[in-house]
Amino acid sequence: MKIAVLGGDGYCGWATALYLSRKGHAVAIVDNFLRRQWDHELGAQTLTPIRPLAERLKAWQRVSGKVIDLYIGDVADYDFLAATMKSFEPEAIVHFAEQRSAPYSMIDRKHAVFTQVNNVVGTLNVLFAIRELSPDCHLIKLGTMGEYGTPNIDIEEGYITIEHNGRRDTVPFPKQPGSFYHLSKVHDSHNIMFACKIWGLRATDLNQGVVYGTMTEEVEQDEALINRFDYDDVFGTVLNRFCVQAAIGQPLTVYGKGGQTRGFLDIRDTVRCIEIACHNPAARGECKVYNQFTEQFTVLELAKLVEAAGKKLGLNVEIDHLPDPRVEAEQHYYNAKHSKLIDLGLQPRYLSDSLLDSLVNIAIRYRDRVDASLMLPQVNWREPRNDRRLQMSMTARASLAAQAERADVTKTSKG
Amino acid sequence: MKIAVLGGDGYCGWATALYLSRKGHAVAIVDNFLRRQWDHELGAQTLTPIRPLAERLKAWQRVSGKVIDLYIGDVADYDFLAATMKSFEPEAIVHFAEQRSAPYSMIDRKHAVFTQVNNVVGTLNVLFAIRELSPDCHLIKLGTMGEYGTPNIDIEEGYITIEHNGRRDTVPFPKQPGSFYHLSKVHDSHNIMFACKIWGLRATDLNQGVVYGTMTEEVEQDEALINRFDYDDVFGTVLNRFCVQAAIGQPLTVYGKGGQTRGFLDIRDTVRCIEIACHNPAARGECKVYNQFTEQFTVLELAKLVEAAGKKLGLNVEIDHLPDPRVEAEQHYYNAKHSKLIDLGLQPRYLSDSLLDSLVNIAIRYRDRVDASLMLPQVNWREPRNDRRLQMSMTARASLAAQAERADVTKTSKG
Repeated sequence: MKIAVLGGDGYCGWATALYLSRKGHAVAIVDNFLRRQWDHELGAQTLTPIRPLAERLKAWQRVSGKVIDLYIGDVADYDFLAATMKSFEPEAIVHFAEQRSAPYSMIDRKHAVFTQVNNVVGTLNVLFAIRELSPDCHLIKLGTMGEYGTPNIDIEEGYITIEHNGRRDTVPFPKQPGSFYHLSKVHDSHNIMFACKIWGLRATDLNQGVVYGTMTEEVEQDEALINRFDYDDVFGTVLNRFCVQAAIGQPLTVYGKGGQTRGFLDIRDTVRCIEIACHNPAARGECKVYNQFTEQFTVLELAKLVEAAGKKLGLNVEIDHLPDPRVEAEQHYYNAKHSKLIDLGLQPRYLSDSLLDSLVNIAIRYRDRVDASLMLPQVNWREPRNDRRLQMSMTARASLAAQAERADVTKTSKG
Repeated sequence: MKIAVLGGDGYCGWATALYLSRKGHAVAIVDNFLRRQWDHELGAQTLTPIRPLAERLKAWQRVSGKVIDLYIGDVADYDFLAATMKSFEPEAIVHFAEQRSAPYSMIDRKHAVFTQVNNVVGTLNVLFAIRELSPDCHLIKLGTMGEYGTPNIDIEEGYITIEHNGRRDTVPFPKQPGSFYHLSKVHDSHNIMFACKIWGLRATDLNQGVVYGTMTEEVEQDEALINRFDYDDVFGTVLNRFCVQAAIGQPLTVYGKGGQTRGFLDIRDTVRCIEIACHNPAARGECKVYNQFTEQFTVLELAKLVEAAGKKLGLNVEIDHLPDPRVEAEQHYYNAKHSKLIDLGLQPRYLSDSLLDSLVNIAIRYRDRVDASLMLPQVNWREPRNDRRLQMSMTARASLAAQAERADVTKTSKG
């Protein structure tokens, strides 16, 4: 199958492009390297020394004999996107090409506006390009479990059947996202459902959980193929960050009580889920929605797992509870359905002791590259402007505590 | 109360600004005249000869002795918006300053992208400006009943309590909007709820129905105060258009079967609803949602009312069913709650024979200004590009019929 991976130089995108290429698909990466730009802006670096994309692609050709096409440009630029579609003629488009960090979107107004405009316009462009140039092409769009928030009822996969005043309907599951970034994905989801309805497009919206891990079968074949491993406060995901903190002897930073429950998955399951979606295209006019994660954990549970793994490796691991920089429920009901991808053949790789060991070992291996100042949260949801440059790591905790007290008013609103 | 009316030169905005001024509030209009620009783009004009805003404001001062402040600029320009907030220091902001036409948003990709970026960024700017400069200020935001779509269950006012698998929660009512414009309002609603939650802002989101009428007590005082009366296929609302069609002897253009049911209200109720919202501010952190309409009609019922009113006035009125240019259910269940504003004191002015007479009489009075070529729909939801300049009125019907046949695939999706 001809598959375009938009955002194929990013964390999930790179792993996906390699996996689909190995499985025999004709893959094109579409990317404008914005993700690398944001590292420069934030003064952060992936733990792992990733190579420039050109070098990565040469290495892949060397080890696999396979060529991945490359189109360099911005999907928010319609002329570029349309030219790419005409040139590559994809049968499926996997769309990762969005700003994907909640804290980044909460830095200030410009970052919030950028995130929503970039993500919404990019996805609108993809929808129009499919409609105009290739109406049969299947869109596989990465959403997030964070679109749902934490309602006090079970979270279904995209749609819920409601009985109300003696009548019944199946409607989109209500969304209560927790950042301007998560909101942008909710906007996308609504736009995609509408485009399927009016134009008969095919789409699969994957509400992905928090991804962990960096190694996949493809990436392991050559050091030049190594994937990102983000641990900073803005782009780092929580389990990766905990492993790095354990490796350098810093306390694991749990936000608030740590009762925040989320869905998680191994990056090796991410790439498999994408392949399953490609092989099971939505019908014309259909917008499928899957919840893409394999296990639920609270943040504190994860911290305790890393603590145990670290101790086994002889590390002295402590857990620290910081005032929560986000506005979110710290203890809540959470039960999100996630059976559809399993029904289609996903065999989950659950978080095991051995995987945790290997994650911590990766962190130990690249310990010299860690910037310890990047792990304390410096973006506070309660503030409309967060100037990361002015904040020192030492003051982050005190500043958060003060802000949390000032912002008591927000605690009256529903978590 | 100091009230800023964003979009105060538009149809609802102008009526609202005058009404609030007469009721003794200190009013500022904030507008960039984009609505007038769109008329030039579309080659359309309001039926009524509206005056430039400067002239309108002078006339208002003459007849009322009251001054309405004026700030000229774009709310999507944050520097301008912030300077305006600092200068005027509003206690309430009534936000009408959005692109509000569904067909305009469906013309092509550029119009869809413009509508969503303009509306979403403007509202994000308003939220940030309130948070940064005046966190106690009450935002009164115009949404639309079109955010809900036409579910097969009763539509509640903003939130619905769901019982699901033995648990219960009150969550935002699921949204199924029917155009890129309506989607932009859904995006706004999600952003506003989130800002209330994280920053403790006060907001009231008014999901307004289709507004009809042009005369209000204020506007009637001087010809120079006359309000817009849009009847064209892009910005015209359905009842206004039917009255103009009746006045010039053209058939009333019902899209499809005409069973599309919507909520409607008199513009004199719009202005009163806004005042009620001003007098009942949301608490800090609260996002109130009201459904702002007074009566439900099907489009065909409205056509028959205008037919009867026209016959009384000696007009020969026919009803024509055109292929529906929109993708929507032409017959459906519809029962939307709308009691909250009535509980707060709204006394609805229902659509009466005498009002219909007066509407048709206005259309007759300005009959010479009617451009009959502007009333047939030239924007088809099924097409990703609609070039209004190339379409002749005579071919619109045939073109729609052909498109409807080609687009059979979309009929399989849920209305």
